Amino acid sequence: MRIGGIHYRSIWMDEDQEVVKVIDQQKLPFEFKVFEMHCAEDAVRAIREMVVRGAPLIGVTAAYGIYLAGVHSAGGLWRDDIRLAADRLVAARPTAVNLKHAVERMLGVMDGESSREEAVGMSLHLAAGMAEEEVNRCRQIGEHGVHLIEEIYRKTGREVQILTHCNAGWLACVDYGTATAPVYLAHDRGVPVHMWVDETRPRNQGARLTAFELKEHGVPHTVIVDNAGGHLMQRGEVDMVLVGSDRTTRTGDVANKIGTYLKALAARDNQVPFYVALPSSSIDFNMERGGDIPIEHRDACEVEYVDGWDETTGKPLRIRVVTEGSGISNPGFDVTSARLVTGLITERGICQASEKGIRTLLG
Amino acid sequence: MRIGGIHYRSIWMDEDQEVVKVIDQQKLPFEFKVFEMHCAEDAVRAIREMVVRGAPLIGVTAAYGIYLAGVHSAGGLWRDDIRLAADRLVAARPTAVNLKHAVERMLGVMDGESSREEAVGMSLHLAAGMAEEEVNRCRQIGEHGVHLIEEIYRKTGREVQILTHCNAGWLACVDYGTATAPVYLAHDRGVPVHMWVDETRPRNQGARLTAFELKEHGVPHTVIVDNAGGHLMQRGEVDMVLVGSDRTTRTGDVANKIGTYLKALAARDNQVPFYVALPSSSIDFNMERGGDIPIEHRDACEVEYVDGWDETTGKPLRIRVVTEGSGISNPGFDVTSARLVTGLITERGICQASEKGIRTLLG
Repeated sequence: MRIGGIHYRSIWMDEDQEVVKVIDQQKLPFEFKVFEMHCAEDAVRAIREMVVRGAPLIGVTAAYGIYLAGVHSAGGLWRDDIRLAADRLVAARPTAVNLKHAVERMLGVMDGESSREEAVGMSLHLAAGMAEEEVNRCRQIGEHGVHLIEEIYRKTGREVQILTHCNAGWLACVDYGTATAPVYLAHDRGVPVHMWVDETRPRNQGARLTAFELKEHGVPHTVIVDNAGGHLMQRGEVDMVLVGSDRTTRTGDVANKIGTYLKALAARDNQVPFYVALPSSSIDFNMERGGDIPIEHRDACEVEYVDGWDETTGKPLRIRVVTEGSGISNPGFDVTSARLVTGLITERGICQASEKGIRTLLG
Repeated sequence: MRIGGIHYRSIWMDEDQEVVKVIDQQKLPFEFKVFEMHCAEDAVRAIREMVVRGAPLIGVTAAYGIYLAGVHSAGGLWRDDIRLAADRLVAARPTAVNLKHAVERMLGVMDGESSREEAVGMSLHLAAGMAEEEVNRCRQIGEHGVHLIEEIYRKTGREVQILTHCNAGWLACVDYGTATAPVYLAHDRGVPVHMWVDETRPRNQGARLTAFELKEHGVPHTVIVDNAGGHLMQRGEVDMVLVGSDRTTRTGDVANKIGTYLKALAARDNQVPFYVALPSSSIDFNMERGGDIPIEHRDACEVEYVDGWDETTGKPLRIRVVTEGSGISNPGFDVTSARLVTGLITERGICQASEKGIRTLLG
């Protein structure tokens, strides 16, 4: 997608194949910086310090980290060097399952090679391939989802109004994003589309990242507080809700950023379709009930403080918004029951949020 | 209610009857200051600059403003001086209907008096009476509502969990508040009660004012982001939702701070009772449908910026949280349909949120 008129991915390889670059997401949207990874330790730092975030992007960053470990590995000890880097990469975000998976995939192909040069060559090939896989998956989600938007446009003949929560955008992936992919494709194909962007307290990923993405790519959008979406739906100002998912059960219950459930309730109350865009790999076939998904309770400081930009100094700043002495609770996700979900948009197609629907499409 | 162990009202008269004092709500909860009103112009400033906010408190402040105008009025021109002050007070917050009403009530009694001294005496009497009326109305709301809390406690035998949105607290009134009144009475009577306090973006009245009130009075409470309430209800962690109302139609539709509707939906989806506490004077008998209530669209800067406290300088600070180039929409209120409301708690008793229920109780 575009930033300042230039096409970017969230991660890319320098032409000389020695430096891997990522967009530094720590200070977005107030500062746009590119972070250079010259060695595996730079990749560890990028993951640990949240220069990169989003499961797909973290996985690809780790894959390139293994490649960089191979490039700089020492002659006869190259296997040890790569193994050490793998451990450090996996430990950088201990709960990120697909980070571990990506590293294991890299080690798998390198273990089969007898020489360091061949292993490094294979690792570059695989890391680049994994990035392509992510892009293709998102593009396919977009291709399936864009039909829903086009259909609304055919019916109404006016700008299609889509509400989203949090950032399931291309910055979290490599390109296109999940929930944003249908919107970017619609926009690029000339379908008039406008996004309502939930601020998404406590971390404000909507106001910070989704709004930044849409603005830079030129997609019309409006930021609202998380409280406003229900009112907009009552007033007929939302044609569709489109969100991502962190984990979906085999019965179609969806865990996503805290607050998603409230928007699903408002969508049902106002007959607004509620779609979830997700790679099929995020469906947990071992889990039946959404109520069994463990909900991460995050640090109180995310609620007590807000990050932003001090206009007088021109610098990023964190301010306190709750005084000491009040309790704080900060659940990070909630579960939207399948009964509230109109459909799941995956790279393999769109299905009903039900055991049968998921099995028919993906089984 | 108590602040730092001392009993306060949000407005009170100094012993010498020359200075009227209010709690300066501009910098709460980070700075606690008392603002002194020595003349009518101080009352105009307090209202215009939102040193005081909340319809009941604004009305009482204006009433005392008229009294102060009388105190400082010039001999033969005292009627002109009071009339001038009245115009300036009403213009300080042009949309506040009960500000106008309070001023007219004051002028009404003063007009009947032939001497300046008698008029001033009457005005002090009425202003103090209006403050007492507000306190009594809130205490009565509390008396009716506290039974609901006691009933839950009798059933469960554990701390009663109440979720509220925005600030319908004593700072907006003179004492007790509306939605908070049943909670303060329950707490003071030894019923164990805990409040979930919605942050209430964009102006954060929950995190700033409701949390401050509860903390200072010693009521256990926890601040959450507006996104979290639905999840808490799903987990059975809310026994009751209790909010205020800006305007209620004669059929029981409730306009309140933006986001209230989303909590009402979650309450219904999880069989949690949803009560609205309100003075019967805020029921608009001329309005039938909630959809007809005009919704104020407020300034974009409330969404673009967040007010808080810079811990490095120890000073209040406003930071930008949305970059320029994104659209902003900021509806201030939403409407919760009567079908989602379990009951209305008024100073006259509790009734169903329906035309029949309201007429039976108040007709």
